[in-house]
Formats: sequence, C-alpha cells, structure tokens
Amino acid sequence: MEPFFTNVGPIPFEGPDSNNPMAFRWYDRDRVVLGKRMEDHLRFAIAYWHTLCTTGVDPFGGQTILRPWLDAGDPMALAEVKLDAAFEFFEKLGVPFFCFHDRDLAPEGASLKESNANLEAMADKALARMEQTGVKLLWGTANLFGSRRFMAGAATNPDPEVFAYAAGQVKAALDTTHRMGGVNYVLWGGREGYETLLNTDMKRELNQLGRFLDLVVEHKHRIGFTGTILIEPKPKEPTKHQYDFDAAAVHAFLHKYGLVDEVKLNIEVNHATLAGHTFEHELAYAAANGILGSVDVNRGDLLLGWDTDQFPNSPQEVALAIYEILRMGGLDTGGFNFDAKIRRQSLDPEDLFHAHIGGMDTCARGLLVAAAMIEDGKLQAAVDERYAGWNGDLGRRVFDGSASLADLSDHVVEGGIEPQPRSGRQEALENLVARYI
Amino acid sequence: MEPFFTNVGPIPFEGPDSNNPMAFRWYDRDRVVLGKRMEDHLRFAIAYWHTLCTTGVDPFGGQTILRPWLDAGDPMALAEVKLDAAFEFFEKLGVPFFCFHDRDLAPEGASLKESNANLEAMADKALARMEQTGVKLLWGTANLFGSRRFMAGAATNPDPEVFAYAAGQVKAALDTTHRMGGVNYVLWGGREGYETLLNTDMKRELNQLGRFLDLVVEHKHRIGFTGTILIEPKPKEPTKHQYDFDAAAVHAFLHKYGLVDEVKLNIEVNHATLAGHTFEHELAYAAANGILGSVDVNRGDLLLGWDTDQFPNSPQEVALAIYEILRMGGLDTGGFNFDAKIRRQSLDPEDLFHAHIGGMDTCARGLLVAAAMIEDGKLQAAVDERYAGWNGDLGRRVFDGSASLADLSDHVVEGGIEPQPRSGRQEALENLVARYI
Amino acid sequence: MEPFFTNVGPIPFEGPDSNNPMAFRWYDRDRVVLGKRMEDHLRFAIAYWHTLCTTGVDPFGGQTILRPWLDAGDPMALAEVKLDAAFEFFEKLGVPFFCFHDRDLAPEGASLKESNANLEAMADKALARMEQTGVKLLWGTANLFGSRRFMAGAATNPDPEVFAYAAGQVKAALDTTHRMGGVNYVLWGGREGYETLLNTDMKRELNQLGRFLDLVVEHKHRIGFTGTILIEPKPKEPTKHQYDFDAAAVHAFLHKYGLVDEVKLNIEVNHATLAGHTFEHELAYAAANGILGSVDVNRGDLLLGWDTDQFPNSPQEVALAIYEILRMGGLDTGGFNFDAKIRRQSLDPEDLFHAHIGGMDTCARGLLVAAAMIEDGKLQAAVDERYAGWNGDLGRRVFDGSASLADLSDHVVEGGIEPQPRSGRQEALENLVARYI
Amino acid sequence: MEPFFTNVGPIPFEGPDSNNPMAFRWYDRDRVVLGKRMEDHLRFAIAYWHTLCTTGVDPFGGQTILRPWLDAGDPMALAEVKLDAAFEFFEKLGVPFFCFHDRDLAPEGASLKESNANLEAMADKALARMEQTGVKLLWGTANLFGSRRFMAGAATNPDPEVFAYAAGQVKAALDTTHRMGGVNYVLWGGREGYETLLNTDMKRELNQLGRFLDLVVEHKHRIGFTGTILIEPKPKEPTKHQYDFDAAAVHAFLHKYGLVDEVKLNIEVNHATLAGHTFEHELAYAAANGILGSVDVNRGDLLLGWDTDQFPNSPQEVALAIYEILRMGGLDTGGFNFDAKIRRQSLDPEDLFHAHIGGMDTCARGLLVAAAMIEDGKLQAAVDERYAGWNGDLGRRVFDGSASLADLSDHVVEGGIEPQPRSGRQEALENLVARYI
Repeated sequence: MEPFFTNVGPIPFEGPDSNNPMAFRWYDRDRVVLGKRMEDHLRFAIAYWHTLCTTGVDPFGGQTILRPWLDAGDPMALAEVKLDAAFEFFEKLGVPFFCFHDRDLAPEGASLKESNANLEAMADKALARMEQTGVKLLWGTANLFGSRRFMAGAATNPDPEVFAYAAGQVKAALDTTHRMGGVNYVLWGGREGYETLLNTDMKRELNQLGRFLDLVVEHKHRIGFTGTILIEPKPKEPTKHQYDFDAAAVHAFLHKYGLVDEVKLNIEVNHATLAGHTFEHELAYAAANGILGSVDVNRGDLLLGWDTDQFPNSPQEVALAIYEILRMGGLDTGGFNFDAKIRRQSLDPEDLFHAHIGGMDTCARGLLVAAAMIEDGKLQAAVDERYAGWNGDLGRRVFDGSASLADLSDHVVEGGIEPQPRSGRQEALENLVARYI
Repeated sequence: MEPFFTNVGPIPFEGPDSNNPMAFRWYDRDRVVLGKRMEDHLRFAIAYWHTLCTTGVDPFGGQTILRPWLDAGDPMALAEVKLDAAFEFFEKLGVPFFCFHDRDLAPEGASLKESNANLEAMADKALARMEQTGVKLLWGTANLFGSRRFMAGAATNPDPEVFAYAAGQVKAALDTTHRMGGVNYVLWGGREGYETLLNTDMKRELNQLGRFLDLVVEHKHRIGFTGTILIEPKPKEPTKHQYDFDAAAVHAFLHKYGLVDEVKLNIEVNHATLAGHTFEHELAYAAANGILGSVDVNRGDLLLGWDTDQFPNSPQEVALAIYEILRMGGLDTGGFNFDAKIRRQSLDPEDLFHAHIGGMDTCARGLLVAAAMIEDGKLQAAVDERYAGWNGDLGRRVFDGSASLADLSDHVVEGGIEPQPRSGRQEALENLVARYI
Repeated sequence: MEPFFTNVGPIPFEGPDSNNPMAFRWYDRDRVVLGKRMEDHLRFAIAYWHTLCTTGVDPFGGQTILRPWLDAGDPMALAEVKLDAAFEFFEKLGVPFFCFHDRDLAPEGASLKESNANLEAMADKALARMEQTGVKLLWGTANLFGSRRFMAGAATNPDPEVFAYAAGQVKAALDTTHRMGGVNYVLWGGREGYETLLNTDMKRELNQLGRFLDLVVEHKHRIGFTGTILIEPKPKEPTKHQYDFDAAAVHAFLHKYGLVDEVKLNIEVNHATLAGHTFEHELAYAAANGILGSVDVNRGDLLLGWDTDQFPNSPQEVALAIYEILRMGGLDTGGFNFDAKIRRQSLDPEDLFHAHIGGMDTCARGLLVAAAMIEDGKLQAAVDERYAGWNGDLGRRVFDGSASLADLSDHVVEGGIEPQPRSGRQEALENLVARYI
Repeated sequence: MEPFFTNVGPIPFEGPDSNNPMAFRWYDRDRVVLGKRMEDHLRFAIAYWHTLCTTGVDPFGGQTILRPWLDAGDPMALAEVKLDAAFEFFEKLGVPFFCFHDRDLAPEGASLKESNANLEAMADKALARMEQTGVKLLWGTANLFGSRRFMAGAATNPDPEVFAYAAGQVKAALDTTHRMGGVNYVLWGGREGYETLLNTDMKRELNQLGRFLDLVVEHKHRIGFTGTILIEPKPKEPTKHQYDFDAAAVHAFLHKYGLVDEVKLNIEVNHATLAGHTFEHELAYAAANGILGSVDVNRGDLLLGWDTDQFPNSPQEVALAIYEILRMGGLDTGGFNFDAKIRRQSLDPEDLFHAHIGGMDTCARGLLVAAAMIEDGKLQAAVDERYAGWNGDLGRRVFDGSASLADLSDHVVEGGIEPQPRSGRQEALENLVARYI
C-alpha cells in the first residue's frame, strides 16, 4: 500500500510559538490536565464520512474534491484504497479513535445480504489496521438516510418492510461495531421526521420509532454489547421536522418509551445551533438530566440556515462547552468526534490536515482554558454564592415537602417579605472568563 | 358607567358578502358545524392584557395608544374603568370567555397582602359583570415576570424568597380563578430560563421548577379546582433561553417530574414559530402525547425574530391547525384565546374591533375549511392508505414483541426484501386542501 | 417520439367546483381580467431545470426521482428524450413560455467549443418544437455555478481564465437565447460571492463583476438583442455571501457601474425571504426604483434556512405580490417563471402536473383577488388619503427646494406645530383585503 | 457635585496578568501600534443613552436598574445629575469621546422651542465638563423614533408636518453637535420604514427620505460643519422593514439621491448580523465602496432575533473586523462607539465599569491581533497570490476595454482553455489567523 498523503509526515506537537502549519501548537496528547492526559480528556475521533468521503458536492454544484477512491472502479477495491488512506491519516494525525457509518466503510451491495457481506469483509480489513496502528473505534452507526428506500423514513416509514430493512441494517452495524470493539453505537434519525403533516401520522410514527429503539436496546443486551447506545438530536435537515429535534425532545421520547436509563445523547454543535440553542446549553441540559453521552464537535455558521459542519476555530466557545463537560465529570465512553468537513474549495489533501490540526488545537486550547476555570474555582464559587440562599431553612422546606403552596404564601404575606434582586453580574463573569483565555 | 366604545354597537353576523367592517362575515356563533355550534368549537377568549392594557410601547418608543384607564390616577379606580370597558367590549363582540393575569385585573399593591386584597376586590366586581353579561373565564394566571423581583426567575430564582413570593402569588391567582369559575389555570414561565450559563445552575433551577409545579398541582386538588392546569411553552423572549422551550421540552419536564397526567399544554402560534415549529406541529405533537389543553391563537411574523402577537389573518393556515384539533376530538376545557395585540399605530378604539373581528372571522373560516376536510375524509383516507401496510402481519409482529431485531433482519435478508418507495404526494394533497378553501 | 406522460391529457379549465385533480379550477387562460387575458397577465414559464432535471438528491441522500433521460446513455440522445418530454409537458399543461440554463438543454462537452456545439444542436431541435407547439422562450441563462471550474466564482474568480470562460459561455447562451426569440436574458450569480473574507478581495471582485456585466450589455447591443437583461438577487446559498444579496444590493451595484438603465431584476420569492424580505417588499422596492423585470414564482419555508423552491400554494400571499405588480402596470417583457420543484418524495410523473396545476391555480386566484383590489380601489384610496397632506403647500415647499432645513425648523418652532398621529389602520386594511379572497 | 461611582477610581492599565477586575489588561492607551497610539486607533466613545439611560425595561418587564437621575423630579435638574455621573464615568474610564441623542442629554419640552432651549442649556453645561475633562464629542444625533409623533416615521411620515418637525429637531441637534465640536453627525432611521405595505407608499417615502437627507447636507455646508454625515443601517426593529436595511441598501440610496460623496456609514455589529451579514462583511463592503465612516461596536446574539446590544467579548471576532478597518487605512473622523448596554440584571453601578472594561479590552486585544496580521503580511500575501493571475495580459485586457465578450469567448474556444481550480485554503488561513490570537 502506497501512502496517499505523501507530503505530510506525522504531526508533532511544537508549542504555541511554532510557525509550522503541520504541527500542533496546543494539542500535546500526553500533557496532564486536571490529572488526566489530554488525549484521555478529548478522545478525538475522525468521522470516516466527512474526512474520507467528502466530494464537495452542494445543492448547486458537483464534485470538486478528487480522490483516487472516489473515481470509478470496483467498489470493494476502492473501499480498501480508502481504508488505507484513512488509517494513514489517522496515524499521521495521531488520533485515538474513528467513527463510521456502515456505508462509508463498505459499499452497498445488490441486496442487504450482499451489503452485510461487504461490511463484514471491510470490517476484517479495518480490524487488521486497527491492530497495526492502535486506532480504536469510538462508535459505529448505520446510514438509514442516503438510499431512496429510506426517503420517507427508516423506523418511521409508512411501509413496515422499510422498518424491517432498517432493523436488518442496524443489526449488522451494531454487530460489526461490537466485533470491532466500538465503545458506543449511535442512531441518527436522518429521515425520521416529516415534510408535511398532510401525509403524516405523527403518533403512529413516534410509536414506530419507540419500538425500533426498544428492539435495538434488546439486541444490544442479547449480544453483550457493553457500549452506550446514543441518539443524536437534530432539528431539521434533511426533513423539515426531525423527531429528534433537540436534547429535550429526545429526553421526552426516552421517558415516554421507558428508555431513559438505556440511551444517552450524542450532541453536535451545529445541530444545537440549528435548534436555536448554544452547544453548551444542550450539554448542560443533557448533563442535568443524566443523559450526556458523547459529542460531535464542529461549528455551524449562525448566519446560514443549514448544517455547515465546519471545524471548530474558536477556543473561547469550545472552552465554555468543555467547561460543562468537565463539571459533569467528563465523558465516559464518549469522545470528541469531528463531524466536520473541509470546505468544497479546499481541494488539496493537505487541507485535510490543516482542518483537523486547527480543530484539535482549538479543542486543546479550549480544554486548557476550561481546566483553568475549574482549577481556579472562581466561576463556580460565583454560582454557588448566587444560590446560597437555598441552603437555608426555607429552601429545605420547599424541597422536603414540609411547606405547601399555602404555607409559602403565608410565609410571604404574614412575613411581609419583599425579596430584593441582586446583580446577575454577567459582564463581570464574562470578564472573568476572558482572563483564562 | 358610561360606554367607552361609543361608535360601535354589538357586532352582528352578516355573511361573506357584507361590506360592513363592523360585522362578522364568517363567525356565525349558532351555526352548527360537525354537530356542534361554532361558538362551542372555538370557545373564543379575549386576552385582558393585550386587549385592554396594550400601550404601544416598544423597545424604541413610548406609549402611542391612549385610554382613560392608562392615565394617571387612583389605581383601583382606573382598574374599574378598565373593567367596565372590558366587559363592554366582550359583550359587543359577543365572545363567551376572557382570560387574565392577576396584575391586569388589579394593580399590584405595596405588599403581596395588599396585592391579594386588590385582586379579591376586583374579582368581586368582575364576577358581578360576568353574571350580568354571561361572559365566563377561560383561564387565569399570575404575572411572574413584570416585576423587578422576578428579573432572575420566579420558581427558578436563585433566592428562595422569590420562590415563596411566586408561590404566594400563584396561590392567590389560582384561588381567584377557582372562585370565578375558571375552567383552566395557566402557568407561563416568563422569566423561568436564563441569560447566561455563567451565572446559572440549570439542574438546580429545573428541580425548583418541578417542585413548584408539584406544589401548584397539590394546591389545585386541595381546593377542589377541577379545571386543567396548563403550561405555555415559549422558546426565547424575555430570557435568552426559556425552560419551557416547546411542547417537547415541557413534555420531557412533565415526565421527569411525574406530572404528565396532571398538566397539559397551552400552545401559542407565535411561540411555536419562534421555536422553529409550525403551530400545527406543536398541536399534533401534544395531541399525539395526550397533553393538548388549549391554544393561544395569534400569528407571528416569520421574518422577525420576536413575538409580534398579531391577530391571525390566514384562514388557510388556521384551517390546518383546527384540522389537527378536530382530529383529536376538539379542545375539552380549552379554548381559543386571542393572545394578540393591535399594532402600535392602531390608535383608535375601533381598531380593537377590527382586529378581533378579523381574527374571529379568520378562525371561523378556518373551522369551516377544517370541518369540510374532516367530513370529506379524503385527506384522512390518503394518510390511512399510506400506512395501510402496518395493518398486516409484519406490522403486527413488530408491535406485539414477537419479532426481534434479528428476526426482522432475517425477514429481509432471507426474503431478499427490497422495499419500493411510493410517492409522498405532497403537491396533490396540497391541491386537495386548496379545494376546501 | 412516444409520449412520456401517458396518463395525463391536456389540462382543461373546469372551474372552482371541479373535483378533477387534473383540471384547473382558477386558471382560465382566456378570461379577461382588467382588460387583459389571464395568460397575458401571468405569462407563465416552466423552469426546464427543476421540472425536467430534478433528481431528488439532497445533502443527505441520492436520487429518488427516476426518469428515462436521467439514466445512463449518450448525453445528446438523452437530451433529446428530455426535450420531447419537456414539450409534451408544456403543451399538455398549456403554458406559453419556458426558461432554460444552457446546461439543462444540452450537455456540457469536453471543451467549451464542444459544449457550444451541443447547445446549438439542441437549440435547433428546441426551435422546431417551439414552432410546432407555439411555446416561446421567456429567458435563457448560463449555468456558471455547477462545474468545478466555477467553484470560486465565474466573473468574480481569482483566475481571469475563468472570467474568460464564463464570458464565452454567456456569449453562447445569449446568442442562443436571441436566436430562439427569448424576450429576456437572466444572469444569476450562483458562485459570485464568497465563503470567507480571509481569501477574498471584495473590491476587486465587485469590479470584475461590474466589468462582466458591462461586457454582456455591450454584446447584447452588438447582436441586436432587444430583450431585457435581468439579474436575479439571492442572499446566500450556494456561497455564504452572494454579492447580489437582494434588490437593494443589485440596485447599488447597477448605480455604481452605470448600468441602472440597462439591467432590471428577476425577483424570486424564496430568495426574497432568505434575505429577510417579503416577496412584495422586493417587488415594491424594484418598482419604486424602475428596475422590476420579471419574477420567479415559488415559495420558501420560512422555518427552514435554505431555498426550498416549493410551488406557491397561498392565493392570499400571491395576491399581495400580484397587486404590487399590477400597480406598477404589470410586467413588460417579464413573466412568472416557476422556479419550483416537486418534493423529493413526489416520485410519480403525475406529481409534476399536480405541482404545476396547484401553482398556476394559486397564481390565477391571486390575480383575481389582486384585480378585485385594484378595481375596487378602496385600498389605494386608503393609502392616498393617508398621504394627502403632502399635496398641500408644505409638501410642495419640501420638494421644490423653496424650504431649507432652517425654514422648516422655523415653520415648526414659530408655528408651535405639534403633529397629531393618526391610526395606521393595519387590522382594518387586512380585513379589507380578506374581503377579496 | 458628589461622585456617583464612589467605589471605583480611575481604571489603570495593569497588563494581561492582572487579576484586578477594575483594571485594563489589554487597553494601554499610549501603546504604539502600527505607528499610532492605541487610543488614536480606537477612538472609543461612550453611548450616552445606553450607559446613562438604560433602565432594564424589556417587553415583559419594567425597570430594574435604579439611578438617581431616573427617579421622579425636575427634568432639567435630573439631566444635570446624569451629566455629572456621565463625565465622572468618562473620566474614570479614560475614554476620549462620547456620543449622544438630543433627548438623552436634555429632556423634551412642551414644544420644539422648549426642547431646543433645553438642549442648548444642557449643551452649555456639557461643554464646560468637556473642557474640564478633555472628553470630546464623536457624534451627536436626534432621537426621531421615541415620541408618539414619529410612530409612522420622521422624514417618511405620511404627514408633512412631522417631516418639518423632524427637520427642526435635526437642525437643532446638528447645530448643537457643531457647537460642541462634534466630528461626525449620525442619522439613524429608527422609524423610517414600514409595518405593512397595505398602508405604505414606498416610492413616495423613499423620495421624502432622499429629500430630507439633501436638506441636512445643505444645512451642514451652510453652517460650516466639517464633520462627516453618517447613516446607520439597520434591517428591522423597530419597524418590520427599515429602509436603511444594510450597507448596500444605503449605498443604493445614496447613489439614487446623488449623495454618495456627501454621506458615509456608521456600521453596527448587531445591525449587520440582524441583516444576515457579518460585521466585517459590512465593513469590507463599505470600504470597497468608499463609504465607511464610523462603527458602533457591540455584539448581538445570533440565536436571538432582536438587537441585544451586548458588549463585545470575542477578541477573535473583533480582530477580523479591525483588520478590515486597518486595511482601509483606519477610520478618519470615525471611532468606536459602544452602542452596548448592560444586561437588565446587572444592577450595580460597578457593572457599568465591568461592561466597558471588558469591551475596551476586547477591542484592544483585537487591535493587537489585527496589527500582527497586518505586520506579518502573510494573510495579505495569500490573497494577493490568489488573484495574481489578474496582473497578466488577460486581466489587463478585461479591464482596459480591449477585449469584448466575443474576444474572450474566442480566447477560450480557440485556445481550448480549461481553467484548473486551486484550493481556497480556508482552513489553512483560519489556522494562520489563530496564530496571532
């Protein structure tokens, strides 16, 4: 196997003063931060689809990015060329994990049987390379949105045969993920949603989706997969309305279908913002409800209304997100998957390195800032102090059930209570954050 | 008491060909539609705050709309002038219901005790007018957002005294609603949300909110209030992020705090759209999950990013929403509250009539369209036909637990199943809808 | 040539009560409205690209819509199959016009020379069918956005060879449009914009674009093309920022480069809304500045952030737009081009008919409403009355230059003038509009 | 006069390592950057309205921020208390400039005559404090949006008496600005726009606005004011559509009314983003067209749809904007006005300092980053290199008129030209920028 990225060697850490564009300035994998190696905090993963399969196609133009494996040819042979390039890239970049959709790794065949065989064959080859390189699998998933058969949904399709087909595809992807030692399995409802209520029975479709997830969880236990099952929320795109709109929508869904202890969330920056939330809001919401699993780290463009999946480039923004993650004790089986793609004008193979180096350095710098905020403790102290009143008698009585609504009313009316507001200190706290950057 | 709307008499129904701007063209309260009077379908309510208290103030300018009761003077005397104008308006317009916030009806006093006394006194006067006119109370609520004391939230305030104050205020508002024969009680989390996570403990605040709602439900049962407790979702405004973001967020919340059988939703058009949803999506979601209670009917401006609270003027859009309501069997204790206000340049008292007549006619016309869609049955038939495959054996096996993920996989792999997609027929169905308009 | 749309015959007009989905309910081409046939008001055109070439591909999935001419095969032979289907469709639908991009009509060849030859050959064939069917060309245009070579812009490309290539392609497209009797020629700056200022020299690019347009206008005069040159504004998509953002941005551009008397606008509904404007705003702006040329009639989804290009389905919204067009005296060489595509689940050939019938009926109904508003004159009278004060002496002095700022100040200060605001009557006027629907 | 900010002394520069929240970490006014003092680059100005007059009122709640001058009392006496606090704040913060609206500085009287007298009296007092402190006036403006009389516009009002009133008010504000040594005069069209086309004659209103601006420019020359007349674009809020939507809309307007050499732009961050643009886009557009005058530096919240006017807190974002300003040679008479306000929960007087210190440090740090990018030259070199082809013969022929469209076509067709795209290198350039931060 010939190297594809011939002009680039392994990416070293050279520190903030380096002018070498092919070096890390902040990502120093063995540096210990809050008692843990940087690599173990961030658990970076490369997204096979964006990094290897991006063509540059957009709604108004065709392929711009040329790769040998995107040329015409025997699909399985091309898949292996792609696999070689993938592991060359993972290794040169020095990331511990990757993630894949079944159809990135292996081409779809003429039937599900053939597709499954393709997937198995490619998984064998991938396992060999994983062994050679030490790169591990953060998660696998099934592509239930690209094919014409899923145009009206997979689990939520009006045709139960499509539901069954999706079940078959997920079974194979989950089995394969298990075999490859994946530590999570992700479901992303690409077509689970609707375009118009005029042709949609939402109640029925939600029940189908609940049932599907139930079957997946059951299968996971049956095969002894100990990784985490994750759902990735997204509000719109490809369908007008996606059922997994945001963390709260998935949270409601998990409660309704009795799966809140079985399934966690994979939260993506650009999906959060399309739903009208900050990334850190979604993280904090999931953490507050015990369902934060993993993250897809990228950035959107808030002036555009679609998923731009750019690499993160603001340490300041990333720091606030990592701060939420550190506060909840870090991701467990989860990691930072770069669900991000190079721009369609970034034609050169080297651009892939620039993109990932920039993204990893941004996260590393963000981690350092977040860790400094944690260590310093001033931010947390300000929050604690703000709610300190709740540690008193009144706060206790509210929560222990000893005070009814009427009792609280009496407390105020008879006590002539008039609470005095205190400054929220937003600007002062923003300045405090600025100190760590 | 002198009439305020001296130029306008009771608004008659005159039919579609009328050129009288002070007549209904579509709202014919006694017309029977699908076996029920129009009035009983729509259960229109006037929002005391917007209709009586709108001043025209906006972020860049002061009061434009002048009313005697908005002048300087004794607050309780002015509240009574306002009450007289309100009931004159309700009666001339011929609506069956109204809704109020405690502070619309009666002015805030120097303490909660005094505020409560004001509220009681005004409730007595309102009851007298309700008896005279037959106008009933759809719902009451407490204003927990206007005062400086609530700037950092009511139930979610960092200060438990504010929680207690809010409890006291809600107790009085709920007791008053009960006494006035209200058929629902609404909670709207005006300040239950946050501006920045830097000073916010989201988990703690959500627990406070859950506890608060619990106390309200407990109190409801204690006093024997048999109306429905409703939460009104809104995503943003006034705070950057409001906890009751949308129907799904409230659904998750109700599940988490064990209140899903106790509380329903009051869904507002403009709040739905600010959350990135259509109104009918929110209705269908709530109906699918058994938590649809009532609606705030208005319209937003999707090119603007704030709550414009305009009167509905598209029968086509309203028809699709009412269709969802009719499909679920109609609102029970709920109704159509006009949470809508005249534009700040609509200075004349007559403009209030134009606004409400237009809104009511739009809804009435929408009801007729929706009823025709129901009666004709073609739309429902198209949906049923689309999902018909689920009535077969495979569909049954998916839901009765007899087929595992592996079984479904086998079904596809061994059967060589390749599902064939069918047209979603969106344009044909849109044309079908157009026929009823 | 075999018919492609075998199940559909010519679409008749059957009136509002028809239940025939393959008939017009409102579009009655010979009906005279305001002294002109409906067909001559609306001048409908079919967009060759969306109607014939839509595949259903979206950012998350592949082709769903199958057509014989989208199969593999000899490109020129397939182009002719497509042409046959196109004219069969145009004729069965009964539209007077079509529009095309060079690359819809004829495939790109191995060089510009070959592409030009392809275009000429297909234009000959199209001309033959135009003669047979009487269908005419509303406008032609060149696709300067699909090819990889244009990824960084056509006229605004950093490489002058691309500028020259674009010039060559536009020359051929304009020559062909001229030869086919097109009454307009459109420029749409698909890639004229930028992704990041970091690699962009905006000033230089704007000058390139100005120069390009200058060359096109010069060429138009040289070949004696008497049609109108049109620019189509769009704010974003495909690039982050498109230079032709909206009507005002193009207006500024035309002024700066001295082309305001040579070029007009082709305004699209969904492009207007993506820029934050209503369609009628863009129409009114263009009309007020004498640069309204033609329209691309479709609808967007204001809850989604991308160009959905759906068929119009709200007579109410279309009526307000047509009202603006009628007020300015109608479109001259322009028309209503359906820049709209069927949804990706609308697989059946019949769906194309449903889509266009719905769109045409919506516009026809909108025309009738708008004409009624014009004929009745009440809306215009309300506006005229509102500004009537400007017909007096003060208004005259403001405009004839006889009053300076200081004079006007004196008028107010010395006259003790305190202007009294009057109701804007928005709700009453909205109700007035409702009467015509 | 007693100090108001009793707990805060003059704000010193202490450098990046300082932990003193009441010190600058980056703003070191005398530090020379690119040959000019920091203070002379940034020319900071305090916005009198936001800094002194913010009450915390929002659409759902009343005043939260208490100040002695916002209490009840004699308006002119309170205005003087406010003036004292203002200059105390300016001096302690150490800013060179301030900006005002006429009605911030002096209260409106019972007539324009009285208002003018109030303004003159307060201007005298302000001048005395300016002399004492050395603080200068960056610009003045007139508030033509707050009063009920302007609800339907000032220059674009349907009533010419309002036009005259606005003329009178602007005359006084411009005369006063001139007298106070202001170096710019700003017009912001708060109500110059419309809510609905149903009651609006856009063409007439635009002509009114053009005429108004003409009168202002004429008056400026008459009184010998040598400062710059600026227009501040904003797309929406308070009106649905504001005529001065964005830089391009104002550019078109200036061209149409022949004022492009007389008037420049005052560009605000949050107004840019509400229009769908980045701040740096608006700067680059204005610079490319020679109409960049001054800036209102603040930040919006892209997840909210209204003007949040927050203080800037991202050095990275500000750096890219300042880079555009430095590239055009810096602002001339313009400066950086903080059109930003504290959050409504920031109750303490100290919060005003936190807010401004954070904003100034953010800009100072942004300036240092931008200067490093300029000095290093690598970013500019990358851009120059990208367009280098235009310096050749073909580029010359495009611009000197020697090549027609047909000539360029020949060049490609006969030369068999097929341009090859090159990487846009966005990620590499973003990484390059990251190096300077």
